[in-house]
Amino acid sequence: MTEPLPIGVLGLGRMGRIHARYLAALPEARLVAVASRRSEAAHEVATLYGARAYTHYDDLLADRELRAVVIASATHEHADHIKAAAAAGLAIFCEKPIALRLEDTDEALAAVGGAGVPLQIGFMRRFDPAFVEAKRCIESGIIGHPLIFKAISRDPQLPTAEDEESLVRGNLFIDLGVHDFDMARWLMGQEVRQVHAVGGALVYRRLAEAGGVDNGLVSLVFADGALGGVELSRNAAYGYDVRTEVLGSEGALIIGGLQQTPLSVLTRAGVTHDVFPWFPERFADAYLAEMRHFVQCVRSGEIPSPDGKDDRAALQVALAATESLNQVPVTSKVTGT
Amino acid sequence: MTEPLPIGVLGLGRMGRIHARYLAALPEARLVAVASRRSEAAHEVATLYGARAYTHYDDLLADRELRAVVIASATHEHADHIKAAAAAGLAIFCEKPIALRLEDTDEALAAVGGAGVPLQIGFMRRFDPAFVEAKRCIESGIIGHPLIFKAISRDPQLPTAEDEESLVRGNLFIDLGVHDFDMARWLMGQEVRQVHAVGGALVYRRLAEAGGVDNGLVSLVFADGALGGVELSRNAAYGYDVRTEVLGSEGALIIGGLQQTPLSVLTRAGVTHDVFPWFPERFADAYLAEMRHFVQCVRSGEIPSPDGKDDRAALQVALAATESLNQVPVTSKVTGT
Amino acid sequence: MTEPLPIGVLGLGRMGRIHARYLAALPEARLVAVASRRSEAAHEVATLYGARAYTHYDDLLADRELRAVVIASATHEHADHIKAAAAAGLAIFCEKPIALRLEDTDEALAAVGGAGVPLQIGFMRRFDPAFVEAKRCIESGIIGHPLIFKAISRDPQLPTAEDEESLVRGNLFIDLGVHDFDMARWLMGQEVRQVHAVGGALVYRRLAEAGGVDNGLVSLVFADGALGGVELSRNAAYGYDVRTEVLGSEGALIIGGLQQTPLSVLTRAGVTHDVFPWFPERFADAYLAEMRHFVQCVRSGEIPSPDGKDDRAALQVALAATESLNQVPVTSKVTGT
Amino acid sequence: MTEPLPIGVLGLGRMGRIHARYLAALPEARLVAVASRRSEAAHEVATLYGARAYTHYDDLLADRELRAVVIASATHEHADHIKAAAAAGLAIFCEKPIALRLEDTDEALAAVGGAGVPLQIGFMRRFDPAFVEAKRCIESGIIGHPLIFKAISRDPQLPTAEDEESLVRGNLFIDLGVHDFDMARWLMGQEVRQVHAVGGALVYRRLAEAGGVDNGLVSLVFADGALGGVELSRNAAYGYDVRTEVLGSEGALIIGGLQQTPLSVLTRAGVTHDVFPWFPERFADAYLAEMRHFVQCVRSGEIPSPDGKDDRAALQVALAATESLNQVPVTSKVTGT
Repeated sequence: MTEPLPIGVLGLGRMGRIHARYLAALPEARLVAVASRRSEAAHEVATLYGARAYTHYDDLLADRELRAVVIASATHEHADHIKAAAAAGLAIFCEKPIALRLEDTDEALAAVGGAGVPLQIGFMRRFDPAFVEAKRCIESGIIGHPLIFKAISRDPQLPTAEDEESLVRGNLFIDLGVHDFDMARWLMGQEVRQVHAVGGALVYRRLAEAGGVDNGLVSLVFADGALGGVELSRNAAYGYDVRTEVLGSEGALIIGGLQQTPLSVLTRAGVTHDVFPWFPERFADAYLAEMRHFVQCVRSGEIPSPDGKDDRAALQVALAATESLNQVPVTSKVTGT
Repeated sequence: MTEPLPIGVLGLGRMGRIHARYLAALPEARLVAVASRRSEAAHEVATLYGARAYTHYDDLLADRELRAVVIASATHEHADHIKAAAAAGLAIFCEKPIALRLEDTDEALAAVGGAGVPLQIGFMRRFDPAFVEAKRCIESGIIGHPLIFKAISRDPQLPTAEDEESLVRGNLFIDLGVHDFDMARWLMGQEVRQVHAVGGALVYRRLAEAGGVDNGLVSLVFADGALGGVELSRNAAYGYDVRTEVLGSEGALIIGGLQQTPLSVLTRAGVTHDVFPWFPERFADAYLAEMRHFVQCVRSGEIPSPDGKDDRAALQVALAATESLNQVPVTSKVTGT
Repeated sequence: MTEPLPIGVLGLGRMGRIHARYLAALPEARLVAVASRRSEAAHEVATLYGARAYTHYDDLLADRELRAVVIASATHEHADHIKAAAAAGLAIFCEKPIALRLEDTDEALAAVGGAGVPLQIGFMRRFDPAFVEAKRCIESGIIGHPLIFKAISRDPQLPTAEDEESLVRGNLFIDLGVHDFDMARWLMGQEVRQVHAVGGALVYRRLAEAGGVDNGLVSLVFADGALGGVELSRNAAYGYDVRTEVLGSEGALIIGGLQQTPLSVLTRAGVTHDVFPWFPERFADAYLAEMRHFVQCVRSGEIPSPDGKDDRAALQVALAATESLNQVPVTSKVTGT
Repeated sequence: MTEPLPIGVLGLGRMGRIHARYLAALPEARLVAVASRRSEAAHEVATLYGARAYTHYDDLLADRELRAVVIASATHEHADHIKAAAAAGLAIFCEKPIALRLEDTDEALAAVGGAGVPLQIGFMRRFDPAFVEAKRCIESGIIGHPLIFKAISRDPQLPTAEDEESLVRGNLFIDLGVHDFDMARWLMGQEVRQVHAVGGALVYRRLAEAGGVDNGLVSLVFADGALGGVELSRNAAYGYDVRTEVLGSEGALIIGGLQQTPLSVLTRAGVTHDVFPWFPERFADAYLAEMRHFVQCVRSGEIPSPDGKDDRAALQVALAATESLNQVPVTSKVTGT
């Protein structure tokens, strides 16, 4: 058997910890090192999984035992870390998006291309069993020609970013919507050619003051004239709600469900069931599967997918939505605090 | 007890027959007469329910026994029939929409106002138990402030209009979407102030050649900044699919379901259930309830609702969507025949 | 067209009122008269539907205009009313069960046979669209050989019988379970050859004191060795819950659902939907359909089904369950009041 | 941090492999050795997870590095392996049931007691999130007093036991039903005092010839008079179907669902979704959680649960069901091959 792949995790926020956990559970990988600027976090995770702890990202990238790295730092640092990892000759898994601007994305991709290292992007929905089966259904022709793509992504709360990046207007489209734009391209099998957006800061005062939006609707027209509609929200008080539909000429697909555990409680108030609380629960299988795909690709020499070009294309749609939103005055109707 | 209300039905297409059937079943009404230009239809329905048959609409409106009339003629005739019924002093129930232009709508409303007769519009969703309960939930505050309105209306096929009105570009928005625009106004409790639409003739060659569209997505911004998204389609091969959602600051509502009978078939191919085949099955209760409301209002002197102003307001949104659609070249990607 | 069938309703408790309402709505029938020993009830219903009111059952049966009668009196009176109606030459629709003893049932059936009048029994589940489709599925062979029949019938409360018949031990099996035993025979297409029951008075003190039971489980073995399990309960606090399953060698069927209106409310407490409150809501279509079937049979001379033999066979299973229950001491664990 | 627990897996059939995989993924355990009489299997799994391979069970139990062992050998060997592991001073996790007879179970429990080693039984449903939450709901009182326990366990096929143990009559109750009997005791919080069973060999000729049964229904009466019904089947062609209900005086719980991935396919044939194919998919979380509980208990000195007494009590119910079944001639109606 091939040796397990020695790998490190750079950044130990929520996503970094998720990746570290799944890597520790993968027999075909070996979590060698983790890095966080917060020393306590670095040592806690390192001890948990028997890995080395670094408090400088550069030290992790310089670790001679590493053959691959998972980049889970803040979004605005991704591009620089990709360039540094590429320079170190490491295979790279990077959380989406690579950057908030196409220019920065292109620079990072050029560095990856120059170094000849593999790069996989964290579009984990491509590894979710339901989305995978939906893709297979579309290719089987069972729903005919795909005509309408619909997606809902509702977060239960604002992301608790350390920096202020989540307050920027486009953040809703880039941070959250980019998953839906990637699914739009992947499931419909073509590019988006026209984008229109409406949105508003309807709940969070902080966002309203900073010019950001917490709710948005994006209309898409695809290359062949098919249509798309994406709803994004940061205030689904009831839980994490991700649903996607594809209407075709002969049928339709509905992906996503509202129930986490198969338990229903029947009382005088009606029948109640739970909802997914947050994305780590909804996409647990997908996070494990994308990490497994990355490790297998690096060990076998296959090219991983989704890659940087997929990230760039989804970012382009998100930026077009932001631009469309900027063309009209955005509503601010703060109902929360 | 008050005498049953003597009522006639003008026009015996699909909707006219539905109304005749439910009126015949209402103890508080008496179906006195029906009219259709097709003599066979008029006599068939009249015999079935023990009513008089007319083959001229004017003769029905001149029937001295009538106190009220249900107008279910072709859409482009509604306004003239409203004016004639108002002149005859009859209480009027009219299928939506009153007309395809605001001017014609206004003329009809003026005639109704002048004659002082009651007018109810066939927005039957306002009488569907699920929509009624959703309205009650919103008003109870259980989902907080309503922030996003979403609606899907997917017909299984093109309407088989005798004339060519269904081929006109705005027909998708006016004939089908007007129900969703009425629900948007009713559930959100406010008017729409901004409309944007995309669409295409993606399936039916006849529509593509005539400049119509069979699939469309409409974005709405409400007066207070809340958002709306409406999907309309004429090609849900699997059945009739009407779903509506309202996302609020404290929760959400999902109205509509995919299953008609509570039967699931479990085989090696998975679990299968049926879908509503068409609107008469989905909205059976609503058609009966709206007719009962109309009859009760006429008998008691109450003013029925939804009325002509509601029709006008929904039409305005549909026309704005059509105008928005006209501003860009519309795709024609015919995948059917 | 044939004349509408002149028909009367004998007994205006819950079931009598349901039948009167649906008969009034059927164009092929004419509700001519109703009878109730409570004068107020008789006149209220008669006025509502334009029928004659009788306060003596005999007077209704003597009404010369009647050609058919719906018997909805108390269960212990059914057999006598059937005999009287048969003597009057009327076509008979009788609520289940004909009687609580096989001897009384046989006497009534003999009277019907002697008079040569048609008799239909109120097993309305045979007319419910979901059960009808399930029957069709079984006959189509899609689930292979039927191997296990399962049924749940949970009432939200004790029946509020005027007399004390609901306190008798077998009442749970005869009054409620008889519907499931009829479905067992109908869906499995064969008779039951072995019955075993357990039960207890677990909630209602009144029942416990009278020797009745409010919860019971019945095991069945069918003629060919297939198995059956029926759960009966009078204390589904959350609503009316009727579900049936058939497991076959190649698949399974699940009939019945927990949701009445297609509305889901999503809040921090999870997703809630309603439940059927009571049988008139769950089986509305079935009550209309069974009445239509009866009227059509009487008008056309067809023999209606289910008939008295079906009632007798279901009663036999219910009595066997009661006998089985009597062989062991029955638990009394009163948790309610 | 405490050292990871060094543990071995004895037996590499389906369950042994599942446990090996999850142990390899647990940071708090270290899979040190595996044993199988089939040398190829032993080496394949050992290589996959970097463990030692043994082809004699005794050699694994003699491995000095081991502190705990997972016993996943054939059922009839469990008791002997428990005694040997206890003699070796190892903490023991054993697949259910310990034995097919109470005497053998008691002997094994005596050995465990004498050696003072912890013993946990593989009733993994106690660790399934939905069952755990159901238990919590019952204890919270939200459904009032539990009155009826219902369970369905339908396997898609016969177990492919190497030996003939699956052909014995009681196997359906002991091998499959024991999970439901454990849930009955756990969720209802009390013992079973009366058992009645019916069953038949309705599908598999092999079973019919050997005197076994493939379908069975078991009625239970609990200590306080509450009722229970358990359906067991080996021929759910459509998939693996485990559902459990508890009806209480104030509400009910329904545990288990029919859908594996949240994908629905809508075509002219209706709406289709998938079903759980088999237990490793349905109970993946539970297998990981029970292994984690065992490891934590061994490391911390806590007493693990469910323990041998739980196994014994569930076996007792299964044996009573078998005895009840033996009192009547069992049907043989072979519809399969």
